Amino acid sequence: MSHWRTRPSPDLTQPISATPRKFVDELAKNLPQGTDKTPEILDSALKDLPDRWKNWVIRGIFTWIMICGFALIIYGGPLALMITTLLVQVKCFQEIISIGYQVYRIHGLPWFRSLSWYFLLTSNYFFYGENLVDYFGVVINRVEYLKFLVTYHRFLSFALYIIGFVWFVLSLVKKYYIKQFSLFAWTHVSLLIVVTQSYLIIQNIFEGLIWFIVPVSMIVCNDVMAYVFGFFFGRTPLIKLSPKKTWEGFIGGGFATVLFGILFSYVLCNYQYFICPIQYSEEQGRMTMSCVPSYLFTPQEYSLKLFGIGKTLNLYPFIWHSISLSLFSSIIGPFGGFFASGFKRAFKIKDFGDMIPGHGGIMDRFDCQFLMATFVNVYISSFIRTPSPAKLLTQIYNLKPDQQYQIYQSLKDNLGDMLT
Amino acid sequence: MSHWRTRPSPDLTQPISATPRKFVDELAKNLPQGTDKTPEILDSALKDLPDRWKNWVIRGIFTWIMICGFALIIYGGPLALMITTLLVQVKCFQEIISIGYQVYRIHGLPWFRSLSWYFLLTSNYFFYGENLVDYFGVVINRVEYLKFLVTYHRFLSFALYIIGFVWFVLSLVKKYYIKQFSLFAWTHVSLLIVVTQSYLIIQNIFEGLIWFIVPVSMIVCNDVMAYVFGFFFGRTPLIKLSPKKTWEGFIGGGFATVLFGILFSYVLCNYQYFICPIQYSEEQGRMTMSCVPSYLFTPQEYSLKLFGIGKTLNLYPFIWHSISLSLFSSIIGPFGGFFASGFKRAFKIKDFGDMIPGHGGIMDRFDCQFLMATFVNVYISSFIRTPSPAKLLTQIYNLKPDQQYQIYQSLKDNLGDMLT
Repeated sequence: MSHWRTRPSPDLTQPISATPRKFVDELAKNLPQGTDKTPEILDSALKDLPDRWKNWVIRGIFTWIMICGFALIIYGGPLALMITTLLVQVKCFQEIISIGYQVYRIHGLPWFRSLSWYFLLTSNYFFYGENLVDYFGVVINRVEYLKFLVTYHRFLSFALYIIGFVWFVLSLVKKYYIKQFSLFAWTHVSLLIVVTQSYLIIQNIFEGLIWFIVPVSMIVCNDVMAYVFGFFFGRTPLIKLSPKKTWEGFIGGGFATVLFGILFSYVLCNYQYFICPIQYSEEQGRMTMSCVPSYLFTPQEYSLKLFGIGKTLNLYPFIWHSISLSLFSSIIGPFGGFFASGFKRAFKIKDFGDMIPGHGGIMDRFDCQFLMATFVNVYISSFIRTPSPAKLLTQIYNLKPDQQYQIYQSLKDNLGDMLT
Repeated sequence: MSHWRTRPSPDLTQPISATPRKFVDELAKNLPQGTDKTPEILDSALKDLPDRWKNWVIRGIFTWIMICGFALIIYGGPLALMITTLLVQVKCFQEIISIGYQVYRIHGLPWFRSLSWYFLLTSNYFFYGENLVDYFGVVINRVEYLKFLVTYHRFLSFALYIIGFVWFVLSLVKKYYIKQFSLFAWTHVSLLIVVTQSYLIIQNIFEGLIWFIVPVSMIVCNDVMAYVFGFFFGRTPLIKLSPKKTWEGFIGGGFATVLFGILFSYVLCNYQYFICPIQYSEEQGRMTMSCVPSYLFTPQEYSLKLFGIGKTLNLYPFIWHSISLSLFSSIIGPFGGFFASGFKRAFKIKDFGDMIPGHGGIMDRFDCQFLMATFVNVYISSFIRTPSPAKLLTQIYNLKPDQQYQIYQSLKDNLGDMLT
């Protein structure tokens, strides 16, 4: 939605009782407006194109740059992906929070910048820590002082949070009360959106890169294809919030996404690099991504009857899941975008930032990814993940010897038939 | 903090750039002001007392009524406690959210009341469900249609949430954008404070009633004793946010709370009803609260040297934990109160509601309980809870037979020495 400002709808500036027009207008002046800033070389090369096409070309070029960047990061492996996730998260937080600063005109508000970054740090310490403890618990426990960090992880995180909380209360100053509480809420909602999501994304990565790459690409595909279909065939407006979105784009994008999802999954299913969960191998002393492909990634025969002609198809069962994911990403996914769109219109800003020419800020590109990440995580935990014997064994060996013995006995009694 | 309004500080109404004085003043008129409403009988009986003492008597009477009510609910057992927790949570949510309605003058805002209650419902479905699945998984799995609810719990909760999210986006109306997003944030912060806390409280109850009763009583004791010490000896103001709180009250209340905590814990440690975790007994087909007291609740000998004289003390180890809890409740706990205090002053309201004569709304009494609940939960998970063999066994029996066998073999190999 990068140029709706060129056709302002007249009642956008209607007086709103609690937020007077003057306030909103003034606000718009101060907020980062994500100018359609273009690198100079490109600008002069494209100067003869009409605006509509110019934007299309710039947007297209940077879409491809981003896609290539993404491919490079994937090539870099899971660690590179996790670091990227962290960086994107921090940038998104910064974009949302700086809008908050402007809205509440933070100038002079004591400590606020430090406080919101402190809360970001604390919540990341907690969430990233939880993941590390979960996946690397065995390794970390070997180092004495790290063991302390693992055992008391929740307590330490809570203590850090409490420090921030007390700091906030002590920083309250009479004439800024409302602003300070509003920014406190703003910070916490941003954390809820940004930090928890990136925590879930990391978990998805550990399940196997495919659970990360396929959903992310689907959202990108849906974004791009909805834009393309809308650009060429768009006629019927879809929703008032985003006047440039059309039903043609929505439906065309949806079909393209499902098709893309199937093909792309079919390719990825062939590589252990994408389908194997990431695990720490005790023997090799490092992370491994090789495995015997699970049922989901082993071709199965499906018989299909079409026009009376029977046929057997050899498919990876993952394809069915890929269809669920693509349906979600094309039906519900866009609502993440509408939400962000409405938010931007509320504060009369065009984009969240101006990092990516033709696209706006990082948040403008990731608005739909957030819902998707949660969906994938929930989907895995409901339909895919089964408790793993290895994890349970680690937990058992953490018990006291007599408790271990108790479990052994119970198993021996229950498995009786199998053992003889 | 029930009558600071009688001595208004002059700069409370200073103009604040983003929230004009007129707006704040008008707001104050519309918000529930938690009048010092007193039942008529009491009012006429106390009419000759000076105001200072009248408030003291009313507050005292209702403090005792609440303490007795609390005792009755405890007598009613864990189920009664959980239902009470739920009711208190709903009431707190209602109090916070109705301030939000007033602040953003909701009149005419489409769907907003329904939406915030819908989100309350959804998040409760998720959090209470998580607890039920955790503690009653075995029982629930027996009933066929409930099994479906257990297996897909997260997915169903997420689907419910998404419905609310889409509903919110569709309900966005141009001239109300800012208000609608603000209320969306307001609702989510309230949920974060209210629902997640009550989820943690329920978990604490399952660990044994003592983990619920002792902390709650400590906060009550601290509140009451700080008030009493402040009333009689209060001289040095503690914090600007709550002008009626004094250092004398803070310190006196702290000592009283630690002492109370030790004595109260000592009494409760004698009863299985309070110290045993709540578990579902397969044999009896019902919840049980009997157990062999764990180490924490079995008296241990401690040798103490005082003025050169050695002495052995017979103490429950739980006493040490009780001291940690009381220190938290008297040092950090009050900050929950300061926070609520600041919030009330921001919007120029006296109390969150007027449910309890002399005390204000439910939120006014529970503001400090929230931090405490999280602290206890984190404290238990960091220092107390060890993985229980029973829970692990349930998880093992959910595995496939060959995976169970794999665990059995690994245990057999590892426990080798013990088995012969």
